[in-house]
Amino acid sequence: MSDKILLDYGSGGRASHRLVADLFLKHLGNPELNRLNDAARLELKSPLAMSTDTFTVDPIFFPGGDIGGLAVHGTVNDVSMLGAIPRYLTCGFILEEGLEVTVLERVVASMGEAAREAQVLVVAGDTKVVPKDAVDKIFINTTGIGEIFVEPAPSGERARPGDAILVTGSVGDHGLAILSTRQGLAFDTPVVSDAASLNHSIARLLQAVPDVHVLRDPTRGGLATTINEIALSSNVCCELEETAIPVRPEVRGGCSFLGLDPLYLANEGKFLCFLPEALAEKALDVLRADPLCAGAVRIGTVTDAHPGKVVLKTPLGGTRLLNMLEGEQLPRIC
Amino acid sequence: MSDKILLDYGSGGRASHRLVADLFLKHLGNPELNRLNDAARLELKSPLAMSTDTFTVDPIFFPGGDIGGLAVHGTVNDVSMLGAIPRYLTCGFILEEGLEVTVLERVVASMGEAAREAQVLVVAGDTKVVPKDAVDKIFINTTGIGEIFVEPAPSGERARPGDAILVTGSVGDHGLAILSTRQGLAFDTPVVSDAASLNHSIARLLQAVPDVHVLRDPTRGGLATTINEIALSSNVCCELEETAIPVRPEVRGGCSFLGLDPLYLANEGKFLCFLPEALAEKALDVLRADPLCAGAVRIGTVTDAHPGKVVLKTPLGGTRLLNMLEGEQLPRIC
Repeated sequence: MSDKILLDYGSGGRASHRLVADLFLKHLGNPELNRLNDAARLELKSPLAMSTDTFTVDPIFFPGGDIGGLAVHGTVNDVSMLGAIPRYLTCGFILEEGLEVTVLERVVASMGEAAREAQVLVVAGDTKVVPKDAVDKIFINTTGIGEIFVEPAPSGERARPGDAILVTGSVGDHGLAILSTRQGLAFDTPVVSDAASLNHSIARLLQAVPDVHVLRDPTRGGLATTINEIALSSNVCCELEETAIPVRPEVRGGCSFLGLDPLYLANEGKFLCFLPEALAEKALDVLRADPLCAGAVRIGTVTDAHPGKVVLKTPLGGTRLLNMLEGEQLPRIC
Repeated sequence: MSDKILLDYGSGGRASHRLVADLFLKHLGNPELNRLNDAARLELKSPLAMSTDTFTVDPIFFPGGDIGGLAVHGTVNDVSMLGAIPRYLTCGFILEEGLEVTVLERVVASMGEAAREAQVLVVAGDTKVVPKDAVDKIFINTTGIGEIFVEPAPSGERARPGDAILVTGSVGDHGLAILSTRQGLAFDTPVVSDAASLNHSIARLLQAVPDVHVLRDPTRGGLATTINEIALSSNVCCELEETAIPVRPEVRGGCSFLGLDPLYLANEGKFLCFLPEALAEKALDVLRADPLCAGAVRIGTVTDAHPGKVVLKTPLGGTRLLNMLEGEQLPRIC
């Protein structure tokens, strides 16, 4: 094999087959994928959750992760948010002609490791190689399916007045880690992405506290945008305590240096949980026993004051509307 | 909305939401997609078939189709090849900053039309916008799932000596249509892509003749590469009659002008069918009654002469090995 990705690695011919056998199957192989049929055959219990996400993050390696692991975590998390156990993933790669094979292998190895940790199998894949400059290095789509195991499943339109709003830890880490790497900024305390698969955490939470109304991971657009989506879908008002929202000091410092708001920065290892007030303490106990959710706190309450809006209570006792993201702070964040 | 795609259309924020509501839901909407959850909730009968494909075709509009319709057809066909009825698709878009919104809308409208014809629902989607020059216009991933309805399902390793090999029509049309458009070549008879969803044709065939051993659509790498894959997976010899393989005169002419072999050109609306000799006539009758498969013919037989190889019988009575594609004739063909 050449040490660079060539156009004929995506031809569907002999070179494609070598790339699949020598690299993809080595790191992602399992009996179903190894069969190399047009489609995978799967046995799953209905109802299912299905989600898709494309990853174009720049740079492809960053503190705390890389595009390969992120592509697994992101889709595992989206499937989990519907109260499902993710089982199977597909991967679609778009590679730029001339990409180093060692770079691709590092990315695919990271996907394999993330998939094993999350206990999901990659069952189908596709690779396209496009001429130099038709894509920037490597983009990855992952699509996942899983088995829904709680009924009714958590869903964006199920928030109700009286619900407590929880977040599982500090916000803004992923966004600031990407941005500071891209800009070559060094902070005293390095900022590391929180990218992680949350499916095991969600399964433990829902086993202990099945009556969760909404689960959502605040990725692009950050916590502020995600809570606005839920307020709209459920036609409720979300009232947040600004001081309760956890932001690491180094993220707060970096944001103030760069003129960014951590509430709008992407997260890849946190989730929001809306559930009846009476279950909030139990949920927090379960979450805090989990290393990935150790920083779980309550940040607010659902009311019927201003349906469709998010209200932030400031430290000085005032309130302001927290809007959905307008414009784009950070392209290619995931 | 601006008339060009801006970076913040992929931000996850307000502009993304407008793009989803005004454009994607308009053409692809259905109750599950409209819910805009992180994942779709689906009811399906197991066993399932699942497949993924990424489309980077250049140009995005070509005689007989465009990247949007192709993205639906390609994945619908791959799911169908496992003897399944495709039910649900996800779509992942990567858009270049500055793309005309009217171009995107034409592509998405074509996806919607193709999905309605194939009777599949788009249930989840994702859109990333990357800065100008980080991608060439628009790339689309589609991933599909369907319900397998024949047992045992057709599969690449099930070809057996004695099987007849059928193809549902002329080969090379899609590949030559793309290449001639890209190069600005005009032939006396224009070459049109065969891009089409084959799921209804396959369902009719398998209802009439359930004992089909292999179904496979000869896309990238063409008929020659696809039959080589099957010969390898099943460890059998495929003997083809060169004169029996249908190639349109205009495709043959264009290929000879360009120095291409139609047996290695991609098809997007044809499939190969391996089945017991005794069922071949019945299968051909069923196929020929279907406008998409009207040109169905038998092109060869499976033997145990040279396991893993494809042998072509030439018009003069000689034989030669037909290899898998080496190198790349045509990048960005699908």
